[in-house]
Amino acid sequence: MSFTPPLTTLRRDGNAIVILDQTGLPWRVVERRLTTLEDVLEAIVAMRVRGAPLIGVAAAHGLALALERDASDAALEAAIARLLATRPTAVNLRLALEAQRAVLTPLPPADRPAAAWAEAERQRTDDARRCEAIGRAGLAWIEEPAHRLDRPVRLLTHCNAGWVATCGAGTALAPIYLAHAAGIPMEVFVSETRPRNQGLITHWELTQAGVPATLIADNAAGILIARGEIDLVLVGADRIARNGDVANKVGTYLKALAAHAHGVPFLVAAPVTTFDPACPDGDAIPIEERDAQELLTVTGLPPEANELLAVRLTPLPAQVRNPAFDVTPARWITAILTETGAWPAPLAATKLAPEPDR
Amino acid sequence: MSFTPPLTTLRRDGNAIVILDQTGLPWRVVERRLTTLEDVLEAIVAMRVRGAPLIGVAAAHGLALALERDASDAALEAAIARLLATRPTAVNLRLALEAQRAVLTPLPPADRPAAAWAEAERQRTDDARRCEAIGRAGLAWIEEPAHRLDRPVRLLTHCNAGWVATCGAGTALAPIYLAHAAGIPMEVFVSETRPRNQGLITHWELTQAGVPATLIADNAAGILIARGEIDLVLVGADRIARNGDVANKVGTYLKALAAHAHGVPFLVAAPVTTFDPACPDGDAIPIEERDAQELLTVTGLPPEANELLAVRLTPLPAQVRNPAFDVTPARWITAILTETGAWPAPLAATKLAPEPDR
Repeated sequence: MSFTPPLTTLRRDGNAIVILDQTGLPWRVVERRLTTLEDVLEAIVAMRVRGAPLIGVAAAHGLALALERDASDAALEAAIARLLATRPTAVNLRLALEAQRAVLTPLPPADRPAAAWAEAERQRTDDARRCEAIGRAGLAWIEEPAHRLDRPVRLLTHCNAGWVATCGAGTALAPIYLAHAAGIPMEVFVSETRPRNQGLITHWELTQAGVPATLIADNAAGILIARGEIDLVLVGADRIARNGDVANKVGTYLKALAAHAHGVPFLVAAPVTTFDPACPDGDAIPIEERDAQELLTVTGLPPEANELLAVRLTPLPAQVRNPAFDVTPARWITAILTETGAWPAPLAATKLAPEPDR
Repeated sequence: MSFTPPLTTLRRDGNAIVILDQTGLPWRVVERRLTTLEDVLEAIVAMRVRGAPLIGVAAAHGLALALERDASDAALEAAIARLLATRPTAVNLRLALEAQRAVLTPLPPADRPAAAWAEAERQRTDDARRCEAIGRAGLAWIEEPAHRLDRPVRLLTHCNAGWVATCGAGTALAPIYLAHAAGIPMEVFVSETRPRNQGLITHWELTQAGVPATLIADNAAGILIARGEIDLVLVGADRIARNGDVANKVGTYLKALAAHAHGVPFLVAAPVTTFDPACPDGDAIPIEERDAQELLTVTGLPPEANELLAVRLTPLPAQVRNPAFDVTPARWITAILTETGAWPAPLAATKLAPEPDR
């Protein structure tokens, strides 16, 4: 049982890479051909590729593009530095480039381009394998209600953690795609995920993959869970502290509270690299405050719509608070799904976190 | 200490009434002059007047307009029937018209128009008095943190239950306006209230009244409450069951769960007429499912923006669930504020509910 994404988010095409340009999703589905390091830098900064795993793989490919022009030691280090600077806090980006450096530095410059392409491809297929392993770790949580119920299993997810953000089946959505491949009938409720509306992308990518998806307002999660309409909640993670507290897209915590209040399992899916052993607990996770304009425009709409909206919204005397993430305490999390299996949240953190290297 | 709304939501002007047309808020602030019963019917149906108390008062005035043309028994009953049909489930509408009927029926037709205007005016000032009493019932909840803290009191509200929806200080916002009049420094966090974005109206009406207001995504309530940034949550109610369970705008319940998890008082403000003694508990409250388009357009925007959005959004394969309300169990509610005082939720329902008349 396996899942093949309906569209390829990133692929090599000769001495170029072709990405699914995510800035237009779900409104415009456009591929973009990147032929230089500069193209890749721009694509990462402009969020044409997004999702931590995909950004790492894109950077690994960008390095190969750079080495096709100049594979000297100086050029290698310069390219790595420029790629790292695009998203300074993304751990996958750093790991991807460190792996490239470990492969490439010992080689003579002439051998480096081919080796860089090979390492980039290894990372791409590794990511797909990792997604599939996360999916397998979560599959039993969908099979159980499927056996028990005589209707489709109803899941709730938040934000976007699917094939669009990876080179495979995604993280939070991976169990859903594997269950779909196994013929389990499901209905996936997707919250809008204000203010950036990533739920619209999730709704789109589920539909593309043939999984029935239902869009809801973020506010609707409480009543749907309370009235027994949700069997399972599945979300991703941006950072997991040593005690198992999980930082994820703002709005996650409210869903965890509702799931707990009504005995609905709440699962977090993330690769092992998401654990931050240097972070003792959720209180230590800084919460990024994003631009007020996100509440005053409708992100995800085509530019001409937002231009019109911006004109109308600007007169509002708009004092805004816009935290981008929230923290769900480990005690409300039923399990954390990783490529090494499903773990109770506190155990997952202590067992799986790599050693601190800071 | 008292509160005068910065704009009048409804007033008599000779043999006409002038309303604040709410369909354009917060984008366009326009008054509208209504001179016939038909004008009033249209204004209620098109939600130019909204908010249960204001709809009742508008209907009472609409009846006076009708009687100016024909004050016969038949015309009186016909006008009442047409007004009732505009919003069949609104209890305030029914009570307002029953009060008019009790006053008018015993009178000779020639005396009815003047009596109808007088009764309408009585209802208008009664509503303002009721709002003020609700505000006084909640004031102590704001004074307490104000005395304790050396910074502005931070409140969170949801949807719109302020002066815009009444002839006075509102319901949930009434304590805030009285506290503001008393010079207590506050910051009011207002959630967008997707999918209809009534939070934008609340943000606007607070700002109009000089109260510092901060707009947040509905999703942000969890992290703000968890990090100690909210001292008090204040919301309105659409229906209160006999056991004190409260139906209110969807998203209310998630805020109640977060408030409870972090020991933040959660107050519900509503006139006594909101209690439904025929309803045993929250499970018996039917939840209205509204149109899918509400998630696919940005309600509250000017028509030209929504027309553009609708064009773009229509291609989305949009399976949508859109419950308009949710139910907060009585045990998560710190107190219910009414015009007769602040009551623990279950006690409020048993003490205050009028006898069932069905």
